[in-house]
Amino acid sequence: MILGIGPGDPRLCTPQVSAALADATDLVGYRPYLDRVAASVDAVRHGSDNRVELDRARHALSLAAGGRRVAVVSSGDAGVFAMASAVFEAIEHGDAAWCGLDVAVMPGISAMLAVAARVGAPLGHDFCVLSLSDNLKPWDLILRRLRAAAEASFAIALYNPVSRARPWQLGEALALLRDLLPGTVPVVFATAISRPEEQVAITTLAEARGDQADMRTLVLVGTEATRLIRRPGNTPWLYAPRGAPS
Amino acid sequence: MILGIGPGDPRLCTPQVSAALADATDLVGYRPYLDRVAASVDAVRHGSDNRVELDRARHALSLAAGGRRVAVVSSGDAGVFAMASAVFEAIEHGDAAWCGLDVAVMPGISAMLAVAARVGAPLGHDFCVLSLSDNLKPWDLILRRLRAAAEASFAIALYNPVSRARPWQLGEALALLRDLLPGTVPVVFATAISRPEEQVAITTLAEARGDQADMRTLVLVGTEATRLIRRPGNTPWLYAPRGAPS
Repeated sequence: MILGIGPGDPRLCTPQVSAALADATDLVGYRPYLDRVAASVDAVRHGSDNRVELDRARHALSLAAGGRRVAVVSSGDAGVFAMASAVFEAIEHGDAAWCGLDVAVMPGISAMLAVAARVGAPLGHDFCVLSLSDNLKPWDLILRRLRAAAEASFAIALYNPVSRARPWQLGEALALLRDLLPGTVPVVFATAISRPEEQVAITTLAEARGDQADMRTLVLVGTEATRLIRRPGNTPWLYAPRGAPS
Repeated sequence: MILGIGPGDPRLCTPQVSAALADATDLVGYRPYLDRVAASVDAVRHGSDNRVELDRARHALSLAAGGRRVAVVSSGDAGVFAMASAVFEAIEHGDAAWCGLDVAVMPGISAMLAVAARVGAPLGHDFCVLSLSDNLKPWDLILRRLRAAAEASFAIALYNPVSRARPWQLGEALALLRDLLPGTVPVVFATAISRPEEQVAITTLAEARGDQADMRTLVLVGTEATRLIRRPGNTPWLYAPRGAPS
């Protein structure tokens, strides 16, 4: 089983995933994500470091091939910049027997959905979802996709905006977007969404800075059409109108 | 409260949403979605027809302003081509007092996540999410966005691919994509995902036809990079590799 436990708040973890975790004999995942699985889940926990996705996937498949009921645990949704792709990559290039395994992917609340809900409905119309990580794809391709998204007035959800090894990418991405879009376009920085340490900041493209994000941040960039409803004494609501003028 | 109950299977409805439904005095929504809320939920049900989103939103806001605990019910995620945008649109242009209401949006499993999980991980890398409905936006803009998405090699999730009043749009969209992408690109038609009547078909862009979808269908279009793992006697797995070659 490959599953996503949601962004952090246990109330955002689906009953399907909770049942699968309770039934698993082994949990495989990035250590901080395993730490979020309830202590009552009585399975062997194989925590690993960041950036070893393929090794982790192969380890999970080996355990499953040996008859264990393995849950590969991601944060958010396992299929959105998370472990599901790595597991299928390991299957395709690995032991032929792994193709016969009973692999099920279980969806989860991805960070973009939780962040959008927290601030209103900024993804209520057409949008793009991009990882800013250039660990496995060229930076030029990322810029080309950002340009395409902005020029076609998609809202944009940015995963993996920065890391210790990638400190400048978000700043450069925001600079590109400033060349293409009005400075008034709303930008949301949401860090550790739905967890106790959650921080959400709403700003504009003109004022957004690359150092407002860390590894736990999802960045949402609106469009020229995104509406902001001000509320005295409260954070504003953002939403995407349901249509576009002709 | 504005909430999404997920694509249909009750095991994909978050505990947060289930608790909110149990606490509500009134449910407002498209009638078939209200019918999916468990009979044990003891609230007044205000079901309405399709395509009256703004009226429905205003009705919910009036009830809430009158002191009722109202849940506006969407399928999937309320923030993705669903009721959340309509509610904020009604707030912005409606009674000033509505701005003071305690509106919370609760995320849900959107159809694209459930469909992707069912077939593997085709949204495991950068992707775009588009509604094909030209009820509220010009068809030219939809074609422009499709072109931008395909040219920048995003995977594409298409919501609202057809309806009785919009029979030809999906066929034209697929024709445009065939001009831009290899015919071998995988296409998924998933209808009523996670419900008893679920149907999932995996085909190619060359063979995909506009009449393979209905109102309950989500269409996923892969990229040139999408991998297909064949399994004897079983449906294949699709996945997006985690990176892109330089």
